[in-house]
Amino acid sequence: MERIAIVGLGLIGGSLGLDLTRQGYTVVGIARRAETALAALSMGAAIEAGTDVALVAGADVVFICTPIDAVVATARAVIPHLSDGAVITDVASVKGKIVPQVAALWPNFVGGHPMAGKAEAGLAVAEPGLFRCRPYVLTPTEMTKPAALELVRAIAESLGANLSQCHPDQHDRAVAWISHLPVMVSSSLILACQSEINPNLLALAQTLASSGFQDTSRVGGGVPELGTLMARHNRAALLDALTQYQAQLEQMKTLIVAEKWDALHNTLTQAQTARPAYLKVPPA
Amino acid sequence: MERIAIVGLGLIGGSLGLDLTRQGYTVVGIARRAETALAALSMGAAIEAGTDVALVAGADVVFICTPIDAVVATARAVIPHLSDGAVITDVASVKGKIVPQVAALWPNFVGGHPMAGKAEAGLAVAEPGLFRCRPYVLTPTEMTKPAALELVRAIAESLGANLSQCHPDQHDRAVAWISHLPVMVSSSLILACQSEINPNLLALAQTLASSGFQDTSRVGGGVPELGTLMARHNRAALLDALTQYQAQLEQMKTLIVAEKWDALHNTLTQAQTARPAYLKVPPA
Repeated sequence: MERIAIVGLGLIGGSLGLDLTRQGYTVVGIARRAETALAALSMGAAIEAGTDVALVAGADVVFICTPIDAVVATARAVIPHLSDGAVITDVASVKGKIVPQVAALWPNFVGGHPMAGKAEAGLAVAEPGLFRCRPYVLTPTEMTKPAALELVRAIAESLGANLSQCHPDQHDRAVAWISHLPVMVSSSLILACQSEINPNLLALAQTLASSGFQDTSRVGGGVPELGTLMARHNRAALLDALTQYQAQLEQMKTLIVAEKWDALHNTLTQAQTARPAYLKVPPA
Repeated sequence: MERIAIVGLGLIGGSLGLDLTRQGYTVVGIARRAETALAALSMGAAIEAGTDVALVAGADVVFICTPIDAVVATARAVIPHLSDGAVITDVASVKGKIVPQVAALWPNFVGGHPMAGKAEAGLAVAEPGLFRCRPYVLTPTEMTKPAALELVRAIAESLGANLSQCHPDQHDRAVAWISHLPVMVSSSLILACQSEINPNLLALAQTLASSGFQDTSRVGGGVPELGTLMARHNRAALLDALTQYQAQLEQMKTLIVAEKWDALHNTLTQAQTARPAYLKVPPA
């Protein structure tokens, strides 16, 4: 295998390009804008680059790294230029709707989701080693060809990512909990603080905000396009998670209203005890 | 000024001791347990240490670094051993109730709150430079003596902290927004995820959790004692903040239910736009 095409040169596509170029692949980058393609070339995120999807011709693997809502259309545009054995994979953070649609267009498709977000988006914040020790989930179905799966898995492993595998619907429900719900929880925190009507108190709160607020608000202050796409494409699972979250928060509030301090302590202890399981480095 | 006493050798008291000892003060550390006092001596967080509050005798300044609910009782225990000019300050994260109580016992009292929490507590996680570039708020009232305020301010500045000043009640309302509300929001996130009834999905969510979940859940997975004390001693302000937060979250959920994606995008943009004001380094 020699040639890898990356369609969409943002944070993920650009970071992939930086790693794969360094590994010696002929990385072909395709962007919507010519300036982005040029920037990818000059930073070493691609060996060839341009705006024409026909550049994917001859690629062994195509990574579709566009926003969620452009993945299926991009696959449709790319496919006429591919040779039969080529493998398509994507990096979208929602899989349930995308995977069956692209698989119906191209049998050698493997859904993927490298979990390596940042507060900022775009090629400017791409970096080598972005995927190292980060979760990278592949979402094969009964239809997925084993050889295609193995190929994408080998590339993801070469990035140093922690691979895991599940069904697209399971993926969407799991990321609703640990990725999409946190965005809504965190952005609501920022907006609740902004609702303080006394301007002096608001200024004081902003001055006193320290690392705790900074961390809790980070994903909520991220790119609005991404949060909107998450909600739009994973709406049902996110709403389930939100409803559970609201019930949990109401329960905690009830303990504070009733001054049940031992029960609140127990509840906070449960949270403290549960958290480490979400931090462990998963087996590769 | 020569001699500084620190009563309570946990994360904050221990870190204060490490900095002030290095600055050349004779730091006297007082802990509940003899082992803690010994540990403080051996790590250089105190020059003298023990379990007897009488050790505060001769101190120019006493830092009360006990948990919130022990501050007033500690002040009461310390005062009989102090010389007239000595200044007492504390580091409790709630001020509205504590400040008038201690001020009534000792006129040379200055309420303080260095905002430098960690997920862990205790002397073992104390470190030099903990307060550098972190907010440190002083809460004088009309009764506070200017000379006492100046003395505490000078010490806090020598730690490299970013000083600010406000009334105790303003402090409590501001920290409800940016410190106490985030703890409840964040711990509820962990517990909501734990409510996933499918064990395979829960395990998958834990495996896929990445830096976004890690950051959003950090303060919620912290020491339960601290969260309980925050709620207990700042109950009214926290409940107001929680109620506002619930309304904000419900509003966001309503947009997702109604599939109002432009409105959701606008809301997330407001959060993104608002966040930087909470991150700026306040003027010293």
